[in-house]
Amino acid sequence: MDAASRRGIIHLNFGEYMKQKLNIITLGVRDFKTSVEFYSTKLGWKPAASSSDDITFFQAGGVVLAIYPREKLAEDAVAEPDGSGFAGFTLAFNARSEAEVDEIIADLKSQDVRIIKQPQKVFWGGYSAYFADPDDNRWEVSYNPFFEFDEAGNLKLE
Amino acid sequence: MDAASRRGIIHLNFGEYMKQKLNIITLGVRDFKTSVEFYSTKLGWKPAASSSDDITFFQAGGVVLAIYPREKLAEDAVAEPDGSGFAGFTLAFNARSEAEVDEIIADLKSQDVRIIKQPQKVFWGGYSAYFADPDDNRWEVSYNPFFEFDEAGNLKLE
Repeated sequence: MDAASRRGIIHLNFGEYMKQKLNIITLGVRDFKTSVEFYSTKLGWKPAASSSDDITFFQAGGVVLAIYPREKLAEDAVAEPDGSGFAGFTLAFNARSEAEVDEIIADLKSQDVRIIKQPQKVFWGGYSAYFADPDDNRWEVSYNPFFEFDEAGNLKLE
Repeated sequence: MDAASRRGIIHLNFGEYMKQKLNIITLGVRDFKTSVEFYSTKLGWKPAASSSDDITFFQAGGVVLAIYPREKLAEDAVAEPDGSGFAGFTLAFNARSEAEVDEIIADLKSQDVRIIKQPQKVFWGGYSAYFADPDDNRWEVSYNPFFEFDEAGNLKLE
């Protein structure tokens, strides 16, 4: 039985096993205290009460952002901790307007957060900027006129 | 005015600028078609209608997972595309029981997905396994008896 037939064409069991959900993204950081301070002070995010000495959770809308020491995360994920260059992912915050993008970036800049790309109109029809966290993880702050949000403020694509 | 006073101690403007939300995580992948097929076939996830030739969006509960070519993502984020070793992040799916973790991993294994860590009880009191996507991004599938979910099925920490 091939994957297509197992996956819904015949059995209609799309998503029977691992539902279409991503609950947590964990950043394995080089300096735990620096990163927690960055997210809690520069972004103003409030750690969840379930945070502890070496893991901090931030409820970030419909997903949880966790901060954990890089060596420990690698060990948990059975990986060598070494790594260099582009990490191959970006995180994004979707603002409600171009003006909100400008305000966020101006605020971060005033707090000496490293702005990687100034707010600008981009080829896909939106308005986008980037900043970097202490591990050089790239955060996009953008306004996408084609996206909609649900009642909880999460992106709702269709 | 220091960050603490700007951020709520005096002005109570916690989160005034960039709200506590993460809307999209974008994976910059080495082979776009392979990755899209992995997520849509092996995991059984359905791409959003707004996907196009070089970007695929998956509504993944309260967050969106996007797949985009690595070179293009690096260019967008003003980074050099090269990188090697541990990417420094993990993604997690939270199951509702240990049995669900077992089922998901057994299903993925039967589809030749690379299982990095077999389901097992772990030190923090939960039950956890890992698999890898085609770029070796690590996905944890776990059951955490201390976590709760909201009505929409997203983690709700407090």
